[in-house]
Amino acid sequence: MKIDGHTRLVGLIAHPAGHSKSPAMHNAAFAKTNVNARFLAFDVAPDQLPDAITAMRTFNMLGASISMPFKQAVIPLLDHLDKTAELVGAVNTVVNHDGELTGYTTDGIGFVEALKDDGVSLAGQTMTLAGVGGAGTPIAIQAALSGLKTLNVFNINDPSVKNAKHIVQVINEQTDCHATFYPLEDRDQFKRAISESDIYTDATGLGMGKLVDKTLVDDPTWFHPDMTVFDTVYAPSVTKLMGVAQQAKVAHVINGQGMLLNQGAAAFKLWTGKDMPLKQLSL
Amino acid sequence: MKIDGHTRLVGLIAHPAGHSKSPAMHNAAFAKTNVNARFLAFDVAPDQLPDAITAMRTFNMLGASISMPFKQAVIPLLDHLDKTAELVGAVNTVVNHDGELTGYTTDGIGFVEALKDDGVSLAGQTMTLAGVGGAGTPIAIQAALSGLKTLNVFNINDPSVKNAKHIVQVINEQTDCHATFYPLEDRDQFKRAISESDIYTDATGLGMGKLVDKTLVDDPTWFHPDMTVFDTVYAPSVTKLMGVAQQAKVAHVINGQGMLLNQGAAAFKLWTGKDMPLKQLSL
Repeated sequence: MKIDGHTRLVGLIAHPAGHSKSPAMHNAAFAKTNVNARFLAFDVAPDQLPDAITAMRTFNMLGASISMPFKQAVIPLLDHLDKTAELVGAVNTVVNHDGELTGYTTDGIGFVEALKDDGVSLAGQTMTLAGVGGAGTPIAIQAALSGLKTLNVFNINDPSVKNAKHIVQVINEQTDCHATFYPLEDRDQFKRAISESDIYTDATGLGMGKLVDKTLVDDPTWFHPDMTVFDTVYAPSVTKLMGVAQQAKVAHVINGQGMLLNQGAAAFKLWTGKDMPLKQLSL
Repeated sequence: MKIDGHTRLVGLIAHPAGHSKSPAMHNAAFAKTNVNARFLAFDVAPDQLPDAITAMRTFNMLGASISMPFKQAVIPLLDHLDKTAELVGAVNTVVNHDGELTGYTTDGIGFVEALKDDGVSLAGQTMTLAGVGGAGTPIAIQAALSGLKTLNVFNINDPSVKNAKHIVQVINEQTDCHATFYPLEDRDQFKRAISESDIYTDATGLGMGKLVDKTLVDDPTWFHPDMTVFDTVYAPSVTKLMGVAQQAKVAHVINGQGMLLNQGAAAFKLWTGKDMPLKQLSL
């Protein structure tokens, strides 16, 4: 659909924003599904976040993707907060319903859908999660809401540990999942938890960028073949951790690409009511 | 060029805005000239104009088109005002130069270029202008700045007459053109002025919408063949006035379409530094 006077704007609000692949994904999906909208990326200075949210209202934007460093800061600027976003304490998607802005988080849905795409269900399972930051928090909450039975949460003893303990408490109070916090420094406990788990998820960010050679697990014997190893990193597409899991002949070794695509698809659905035709997008 | 993380936004800021043809024109021109930008229309509530201008800064927009009812109201919200826009007292184009917003008016340039496209020059000529509102004001100022020798300004005795008299004064003080105000109710003077003019321009808006059957001149003998008759109306493409001029075998009978396209082209040049390829756009 060509842009006309009724074309709606969707924006990525982030800092920085220029590197984002979201415009390519969402505009291709708008085209495939005949939605009269365009997705542009806006690099918003941190002190201008309130102005950016006001702009959503002024320009009657269809919605926005919210990324670093605004996922928490945006919350008090919105009119409504989805239950999952409230539990996570972060928003990555805003929908404008006739002038009322509601915040959602689709990162956790992206994780659950990525597992599902690989034939992995969370229902009744045990998962060990390392790292409870921007990726690990929605993963923990959404997994707990999606029927996970037991969650072992490991976090290093840095300022983020406070959030990790808080999330464990939230899960135990608000969901049917049983969560336990452990210090990541306890390697014996960490090894034991993984050995007893159906799923091991690494949300620490180790294995990419300057930390490309790092992994929390370098011994294949820690894994067993009938489990799933999930790494939130998507570049490189096979991380050091995933290589160790492949050595252990782990059944499902999954990187973060599917989580990224599926969180985008979930946001697209919230804005448009339509399924994102992921397989037709050739991303 | 596909939209990516660096695509710049240009907006129409108006109320209403949905009917605008500007998105079609500017996006086609961006595509033809390989400019990484998109033009969307935003229907902005009157009390949200300050927020819309703030949004231009927050989203680092390349620029904006400003239309009714904001052409005057936008001025105090900008950082700089082009000289012609200052004389006209209105802005239809905003350019964002590295965070500094400058207001321009290109409506008068659109008029001058439309005449030029028809082989008509203003230099040394005499023009009679009826109506000094949103269209007539920039026409008067730009014609005076473009070498017009004599300008006869006619306006009805309603609240707009104050602006008409002010513009006559501005032209006499700030340009080399000699301008005179006359009441449009003085039909004898109006007829005489037209008969002595090289160009007659109607900027009253008569001849369109509910006033489609109206014209200030219904007698072909008021015109002479070697003159130009310009009507700012573009729909219908031949107004009642233009029909009368054609009966009089007037050499150049021009509607407002060329003015509209050329004011858009002038705005495009201000945003991009490039000439709008009007003939390639098939509008």
